[in-house]
Amino acid sequence: MKRGSIIGIDIGGTKVSGCLARRQKIVARVREATRLAGGASALPGQVHMLSVRLLETAGTDKDELAGVGISAAGPFRRKDGMIELVSPNLCGALPGNRGRLPNDWTEIPLEKELRKSFDILRIGNDAVCGAVAERAFGAGRDADDLVYVTWSTGIGTGAFVDGKLISGRNGNAPHGGHIYVAEEGHMCGCGNRGDLESLVSGPAIARDYGGGITTTEVFERYRGGDGRAAEIIQRAARNFARGLASVNAVLDTSMIIIGGSVFLNNIDLLLPMVREEFYRSFSCLSSGVEIVPSELKEDLGDLGGLALVMPSKWVEEWRRERPWER
Amino acid sequence: MKRGSIIGIDIGGTKVSGCLARRQKIVARVREATRLAGGASALPGQVHMLSVRLLETAGTDKDELAGVGISAAGPFRRKDGMIELVSPNLCGALPGNRGRLPNDWTEIPLEKELRKSFDILRIGNDAVCGAVAERAFGAGRDADDLVYVTWSTGIGTGAFVDGKLISGRNGNAPHGGHIYVAEEGHMCGCGNRGDLESLVSGPAIARDYGGGITTTEVFERYRGGDGRAAEIIQRAARNFARGLASVNAVLDTSMIIIGGSVFLNNIDLLLPMVREEFYRSFSCLSSGVEIVPSELKEDLGDLGGLALVMPSKWVEEWRRERPWER
Repeated sequence: MKRGSIIGIDIGGTKVSGCLARRQKIVARVREATRLAGGASALPGQVHMLSVRLLETAGTDKDELAGVGISAAGPFRRKDGMIELVSPNLCGALPGNRGRLPNDWTEIPLEKELRKSFDILRIGNDAVCGAVAERAFGAGRDADDLVYVTWSTGIGTGAFVDGKLISGRNGNAPHGGHIYVAEEGHMCGCGNRGDLESLVSGPAIARDYGGGITTTEVFERYRGGDGRAAEIIQRAARNFARGLASVNAVLDTSMIIIGGSVFLNNIDLLLPMVREEFYRSFSCLSSGVEIVPSELKEDLGDLGGLALVMPSKWVEEWRRERPWER
Repeated sequence: MKRGSIIGIDIGGTKVSGCLARRQKIVARVREATRLAGGASALPGQVHMLSVRLLETAGTDKDELAGVGISAAGPFRRKDGMIELVSPNLCGALPGNRGRLPNDWTEIPLEKELRKSFDILRIGNDAVCGAVAERAFGAGRDADDLVYVTWSTGIGTGAFVDGKLISGRNGNAPHGGHIYVAEEGHMCGCGNRGDLESLVSGPAIARDYGGGITTTEVFERYRGGDGRAAEIIQRAARNFARGLASVNAVLDTSMIIIGGSVFLNNIDLLLPMVREEFYRSFSCLSSGVEIVPSELKEDLGDLGGLALVMPSKWVEEWRRERPWER
């Protein structure tokens, strides 16, 4: 069997997980705490090691790989054409991170290191991988124009435009969490004031309520009739929808797929609010755009990296058999 | 000579202009007031007639055309795959236009009508054509990722991403004038409150100053030391720059080219303000992006439509010879 396997890896701030798939099934899985100490190639080294372990478990070797797809926390930077991670959740020496992480990395040379071992390699940020996976297996089947957005601890977006996954100068398109939707506001982790993430992310909702309660508790209080919780959640939903309207104005899309824990745990409340505000925006641009929840939900972690490198002839079969559910 | 001519047409709210070019020069020009009365095919009929007149003046016929490129006021809508204009400046029956225009059009079937006469036809909004022309002949030579933005009576944008001109579901990408940059504000012509155009366009600057003075006069007062004019212009420049930062967050571009009369008449004041605020936004995304003025300026009207359909082998020659300047 020549090149009959693919590997998908998901790099998050707390864990790195991965799986190896063949044409009809996922045959091996790994998961570890993210390696955040050591030199700047520690994390690429961990990804390499986990890939080797996946190959061993599956009883195959890297010459049989049709590709390695990596979903990673952004943002990225291209250096000599190769993607480096400059993620605040991973690099300790970025501004604002002083002492928060056990390393002094300003960037992680992920692609350069992994190219030494893997010739067919693609790297996308987690929301970009979400867009690819939802288009292949989820809510967005084959749409030429779609946006995937995750509403969670942060806000991330991925998009197809005119049938192509957009990438941009550094592979960061479409970084929707850092568009401005207000003239002023609390400072975002990125340094902006008034951007989408600083106004509507899970932590922003908890911060706006105050008193040390969690985002989940703010939603519980809203459901219990708490007026202050209602005001905060309604403002967040309005700004989230206005952010989507801005992304749609720029990309002229046909479908917006929403995932992420803040949204998925509260679809009943948030989806009607988001739709109402979105369709209030410039009707020439907003009317006809479908707004739907993610279908893949927590399976996006596994499927994101795999979808980036899955041979197109596998896709039909995976749609039918849904091997990730087994 | 087989297919050795191209036509470019620019449809604005007050005039329609056009030219016919051969490999080395522009050989005929026309210009008329925009036909805004009659049936919904009046304007496509005018474009057809002007094209026929260009062919006659040039002594050629439509079988020799390598393409007709049309730059038109947006937004657009695709119906059965064909572009219709749904421009508030052209269609009298759009909401908010009651009685302002001498027609009851809700859309103009531009592509459908013109396809009857011309087989090689491309239609782009004026800022999208601006991006194509600046990339071919102006400030953006061959950049894979660039944004053109016009700051004028309205705000329009056009963009290349990953080397491709983006278009979107209805051909409206990237409609940057209608992204939200504030939570509240005056109502835009499109119905939005707090979008970029409603906050920073030429008319918005005059409106914010009040007293019936023109945008040009607000800038004159600023130069004369008027504090109120300074406050208004500084806020507009800040919001314009934040709008660019949002568009850049979504598209991850490498170059932003600014045109339009508000900007071009005040480059000395506005360019430093815009750059300062832009680079204050999330440095992972903003650093390394070049911000430059349009090079083609008022020639964009002619060149926009031509650039959409110009054979690639002409482009080098036009760059060298600059026939539009003769």
